[in-house]
Amino acid sequence: MNDRVREILSWYASENPGVRTNLARMLNHGRLAGTGKMVILPVDQGFEHGPARSFAPNPAGYDPRYHFQLAVEAGCNAYAAPLGFLEAGVSDYCGEVPLILKCNNHDLLNDEKDPISAVTAGVRDALRLGCVAVGFTIYPGSAERTEMYQQLRELTEEAKDAGLAVVVWSYPRGSSLSKEGETAVDVVTYAAQIAAQLGADIIKVKLPSAKVELAEAQKVYQKYEIPISTLAERVRHVIQSSFDGRRIVIFSGGTFAEDEKFFEEVRAIRDGGGFGSIVGRNSFQRNKEDALKFLGTIMGIYEGSVQ
Amino acid sequence: MNDRVREILSWYASENPGVRTNLARMLNHGRLAGTGKMVILPVDQGFEHGPARSFAPNPAGYDPRYHFQLAVEAGCNAYAAPLGFLEAGVSDYCGEVPLILKCNNHDLLNDEKDPISAVTAGVRDALRLGCVAVGFTIYPGSAERTEMYQQLRELTEEAKDAGLAVVVWSYPRGSSLSKEGETAVDVVTYAAQIAAQLGADIIKVKLPSAKVELAEAQKVYQKYEIPISTLAERVRHVIQSSFDGRRIVIFSGGTFAEDEKFFEEVRAIRDGGGFGSIVGRNSFQRNKEDALKFLGTIMGIYEGSVQ
Amino acid sequence: MNDRVREILSWYASENPGVRTNLARMLNHGRLAGTGKMVILPVDQGFEHGPARSFAPNPAGYDPRYHFQLAVEAGCNAYAAPLGFLEAGVSDYCGEVPLILKCNNHDLLNDEKDPISAVTAGVRDALRLGCVAVGFTIYPGSAERTEMYQQLRELTEEAKDAGLAVVVWSYPRGSSLSKEGETAVDVVTYAAQIAAQLGADIIKVKLPSAKVELAEAQKVYQKYEIPISTLAERVRHVIQSSFDGRRIVIFSGGTFAEDEKFFEEVRAIRDGGGFGSIVGRNSFQRNKEDALKFLGTIMGIYEGSVQ
Amino acid sequence: MNDRVREILSWYASENPGVRTNLARMLNHGRLAGTGKMVILPVDQGFEHGPARSFAPNPAGYDPRYHFQLAVEAGCNAYAAPLGFLEAGVSDYCGEVPLILKCNNHDLLNDEKDPISAVTAGVRDALRLGCVAVGFTIYPGSAERTEMYQQLRELTEEAKDAGLAVVVWSYPRGSSLSKEGETAVDVVTYAAQIAAQLGADIIKVKLPSAKVELAEAQKVYQKYEIPISTLAERVRHVIQSSFDGRRIVIFSGGTFAEDEKFFEEVRAIRDGGGFGSIVGRNSFQRNKEDALKFLGTIMGIYEGSVQ
Amino acid sequence: MNDRVREILSWYASENPGVRTNLARMLNHGRLAGTGKMVILPVDQGFEHGPARSFAPNPAGYDPRYHFQLAVEAGCNAYAAPLGFLEAGVSDYCGEVPLILKCNNHDLLNDEKDPISAVTAGVRDALRLGCVAVGFTIYPGSAERTEMYQQLRELTEEAKDAGLAVVVWSYPRGSSLSKEGETAVDVVTYAAQIAAQLGADIIKVKLPSAKVELAEAQKVYQKYEIPISTLAERVRHVIQSSFDGRRIVIFSGGTFAEDEKFFEEVRAIRDGGGFGSIVGRNSFQRNKEDALKFLGTIMGIYEGSVQ
Repeated sequence: MNDRVREILSWYASENPGVRTNLARMLNHGRLAGTGKMVILPVDQGFEHGPARSFAPNPAGYDPRYHFQLAVEAGCNAYAAPLGFLEAGVSDYCGEVPLILKCNNHDLLNDEKDPISAVTAGVRDALRLGCVAVGFTIYPGSAERTEMYQQLRELTEEAKDAGLAVVVWSYPRGSSLSKEGETAVDVVTYAAQIAAQLGADIIKVKLPSAKVELAEAQKVYQKYEIPISTLAERVRHVIQSSFDGRRIVIFSGGTFAEDEKFFEEVRAIRDGGGFGSIVGRNSFQRNKEDALKFLGTIMGIYEGSVQ
Repeated sequence: MNDRVREILSWYASENPGVRTNLARMLNHGRLAGTGKMVILPVDQGFEHGPARSFAPNPAGYDPRYHFQLAVEAGCNAYAAPLGFLEAGVSDYCGEVPLILKCNNHDLLNDEKDPISAVTAGVRDALRLGCVAVGFTIYPGSAERTEMYQQLRELTEEAKDAGLAVVVWSYPRGSSLSKEGETAVDVVTYAAQIAAQLGADIIKVKLPSAKVELAEAQKVYQKYEIPISTLAERVRHVIQSSFDGRRIVIFSGGTFAEDEKFFEEVRAIRDGGGFGSIVGRNSFQRNKEDALKFLGTIMGIYEGSVQ
Repeated sequence: MNDRVREILSWYASENPGVRTNLARMLNHGRLAGTGKMVILPVDQGFEHGPARSFAPNPAGYDPRYHFQLAVEAGCNAYAAPLGFLEAGVSDYCGEVPLILKCNNHDLLNDEKDPISAVTAGVRDALRLGCVAVGFTIYPGSAERTEMYQQLRELTEEAKDAGLAVVVWSYPRGSSLSKEGETAVDVVTYAAQIAAQLGADIIKVKLPSAKVELAEAQKVYQKYEIPISTLAERVRHVIQSSFDGRRIVIFSGGTFAEDEKFFEEVRAIRDGGGFGSIVGRNSFQRNKEDALKFLGTIMGIYEGSVQ
Repeated sequence: MNDRVREILSWYASENPGVRTNLARMLNHGRLAGTGKMVILPVDQGFEHGPARSFAPNPAGYDPRYHFQLAVEAGCNAYAAPLGFLEAGVSDYCGEVPLILKCNNHDLLNDEKDPISAVTAGVRDALRLGCVAVGFTIYPGSAERTEMYQQLRELTEEAKDAGLAVVVWSYPRGSSLSKEGETAVDVVTYAAQIAAQLGADIIKVKLPSAKVELAEAQKVYQKYEIPISTLAERVRHVIQSSFDGRRIVIFSGGTFAEDEKFFEEVRAIRDGGGFGSIVGRNSFQRNKEDALKFLGTIMGIYEGSVQ
Repeated sequence: MNDRVREILSWYASENPGVRTNLARMLNHGRLAGTGKMVILPVDQGFEHGPARSFAPNPAGYDPRYHFQLAVEAGCNAYAAPLGFLEAGVSDYCGEVPLILKCNNHDLLNDEKDPISAVTAGVRDALRLGCVAVGFTIYPGSAERTEMYQQLRELTEEAKDAGLAVVVWSYPRGSSLSKEGETAVDVVTYAAQIAAQLGADIIKVKLPSAKVELAEAQKVYQKYEIPISTLAERVRHVIQSSFDGRRIVIFSGGTFAEDEKFFEEVRAIRDGGGFGSIVGRNSFQRNKEDALKFLGTIMGIYEGSVQ
């Protein structure tokens, strides 16, 4: 194990060795093994957005085995999905890629202003499926957030007892936030902080915009001249807001007409000290050859072999 | 152990020796050890107000280890924080300062009129992290208060069984209170009484104003000429309202342009028979050197070495 | 993952994916990764034989971290040890080598004729330490075997629920067996069968002699002319007796004046279709340089690079 | 916290922060605070030997409060006793000295050859009494040892979950050991190893003699010329046998006509790298003034202020 | 409440207020209320010795209600009996006399050398019957004592949680004790010490003889010249051996031709600082009028109105 991975694990000294082992399994797997960087493939869009919206662009993705294969071939650090997708494919890929069981999910058939996901899986599932971590989404900003935080807390307690790491998707949403506010830099950093305070081992947020949503926060950003004009600066601020860089934070990007725009974001994550990317639709919605090339470039940027 | 600490512990004769031991650990730690006074460092603002508003003024505070170090160097009686902040720093400071695990938290991303905090940690966490107490916030005045009181009651039962002390933040808030009413003297004393009746070992309230919020209360304050004109008198009335001085009550102060204003409040707490201060933002939002000097003056006032 | 590993996993199709993942983790780790062969380092002799007998020949082995380091450097598929040894070293080696928690242990301070080991660890321990499997010793032939089989059954049920593989040390001992009978070919194959029937995923037996202990068995061996004259034949018979080769069986060897004798045994295991070796005292009781060379030769024989 | 205590705590990196905090509480308490050495006062003789044999020499010791007072005044690192003695005194000494609840006990009214102690208290008791650790005696060598190891394992699992440290008294006894064999160096080191493998945080053994009891061990001691002729050498060998010095091991001494003999043993413990002494009868069976002087000399030897 | 009762309750400061309340109920009931002395009526002989041996001398005693009536009329501090006797009479006497539910019992139909009583009732029974305490017998000296101590420990934990006091009958018996040894002063004091260490609130032992049973103890009695020649001296030694007088110890007497002999014993208990008597057969085996007179004289001796 190299020094960077040891250094990262040292931040988790209060976790039991099982949790640290599973973090190491992700950090030491795939093309980015040992770099301290991570690229994770998540495929929960079937549940979150519906099958056609998710898989029609690349119908191979209707098959749950496809995504395992993609994650393995691309050399991702981990593959994350809901219960059904993992169950339907894992038997063909035991031990080939670290798995994250997404334990709650939300659909769009009733699109509430203040959403809450349903708890759809748990620690016993994660153990019997051979996962290294559980994943959970919270929506800070939702009127239902208290319930979600409490569900996460119970899951976290049970998961860590069983040596599983906890990955939290922290997505601000809800009736009191504007649409742009969901990715405002003060809101995204707040969401990262909440996930960290709730005990997340790995935090997943969206890349923040330069907007500041909350009036009280705005005063502070101005008074202390917090640098947030470039994306790399904002990434750095997210990392800082996640226990001063002592928690792994990875980012999801937008959808773009040109891949180069995406790669620019990846470079900003790298330059801002981010720990990696979680790349779903941008990878599995194109054919595998293109996806492998696309993911390869992203990994190349993180490892330094691609500019 | 000196006589004052023994006297304070005698008020808790119905608690098991474990709870009394943990109260003693706080009372006998740090610069104020043995005085019967307490200065506690709480850092839950990352969750309650967001990271930039909390830590931008002194960016060292983004690092969870900073606050442990500050509490240790300042000689605070205890350090209180949410799960994530404790987990991320405790391994470097095992046994160096008594810890209070803040077991519920609230964020501002959906700022309800009738707030309720999410339960974010529990007794098992407190034990495995080596804490001396659990902390819990109630919002008397909130339409959700019944739920919070019941959560607190369950936490208290479990915590005391395990020998942990219970620290209650009692902050009146809610749609039926005016903004000024939240610190009205009749409301603050009522909030202190509720916390005491719920079994709190240590009660934390805001310093009360001379305002009396409730009409029925106003009649009584006038009829019996309860002295509430000076801050020291109001502190004395809070202490009286918390089982006639037989529960430890500590106070948080406001934010001021001048430190001297803050010290005047501390003198009033001391003169009114208060047991100490809980000093968060006023300490960790300035650089450590200034913070140590600031906390040192406060402790000096309580121990009598500073006027 | 290569075809041989897939083939082996196919024998365990009734196990949940977690168990298969953990089997794959062992099969895909270290120098023999992907070969379907295994060399495991076990260090429970401190408990079983006492510290001086175990570690005086190479005092570096008193330190629990030494054995992790040896297993990592040698490229063993797994490292197996009791609770204390794993706990005292794992934090320095999280994720670097698959771990097997030896869940029962026996000492020689009261050396009964019909031994039973004490249950010294369990599934919760294995999970919090990040292990891939639990290990358990049974003594078929002991008057206490019923109790041991039942303890194993309970452990197995719980372990597999949690996705952990089960490794069984099946060592015939007890008042009704002669000393030579403990390694008689009919007794060793019987012991392997019992372990398989009890649900073992990996079975560990001693290399059998050509002796047949039980009279009723002897009649059958003669009547059907079961070939047991060479060691390779006897290994093949053990493998056959363990569900016709559909369970992983590994062997421990004796102690020899010359390493070449040991390597001859390894060649017999290989030629008889055995799955590998578990090499304890022969490796950790010599200095690390020699141990690495010794284990390297063994692995070379299994992978075919050494004759 | 000084570097030596931090170093010791680093050996326990797999324990949760609660266990490490309670270890730190002992290491940082009393006259030897911060030295990495410990002197513990144990008083379980009332149960183990009967009241008159225990307390007639200094009748003040019949009173449970006496021993708390003695431990506090002497500046011991901890005080260990059975349930009744702790319950009957703790309320007067909450928080004044770290407490170890002795959770099993044995009396002499039926003095079996293969003894087993009765489980007389547990983790819930330890928590409600404010203890930092549980204590448990095992008798390696007893035919009943398997049951004791399993009781210890259950206690340990529960205790560490609750953040309590585990102190194991490992005393070889039983029908298969000679009386002299109980303190033979091979037997004592074996007993220390067993306690360590069972997960003990602190191990307590008797000082070993130069005798080697077991024939198989004798061969090894001779072949490798393990130095065991002086007491300091034997202490060093015990420490080595307890995970190469990575577990805290403390020693009890004999009873002597002259204190100087006892101090010589203490010097040997110090010179051999032992972590301290547990001094029961030699301290509480003399009057308090003498006991304080006696314990003071022992501590002085450990801290280096006394030759 | 008078000062003596407050003083006695102060010894139980680690017990919860429920246990202390139930102790106070006994101490403040009946003719000896407030004196700190107790006379308890126990009727378990129907189970222990059979009905005819128990009740033929005064056939009224076959009726379970008789003993309630006797205890009430005599002004006893409490009445103790097995489940059946309490159930069959309590409805007529709710709240008239504090009740102790005897939770284990032994019969003579198989009179083992190493006896153990059967657990015949528990805490739920005691609560639903309105008892103030549970009673339990241990036989120190029996080969089965370990099991009994563990049963008592479980009962005690549950009882005290429910606020019930615990009364322990500690009767040395077993194959390793001579018949006279059962009441030897060293054995009786040892039995009292064991009960106290196990957490008994009230201890019941037999009056000790001047015999010293154990050789190791004899040396101590002689060396320290412990005064045990008179019964009062031996009572004082029992009290001393029960935490230096900080636990309530009561005594049972023998059966005598003349009542005056019995009263002499009571005077010795009084003069030796004993807390009272438990008087079974000597009271209920005579007619009620005589029994009331007999018990009246005993109480008179304790309260000082009778010489």
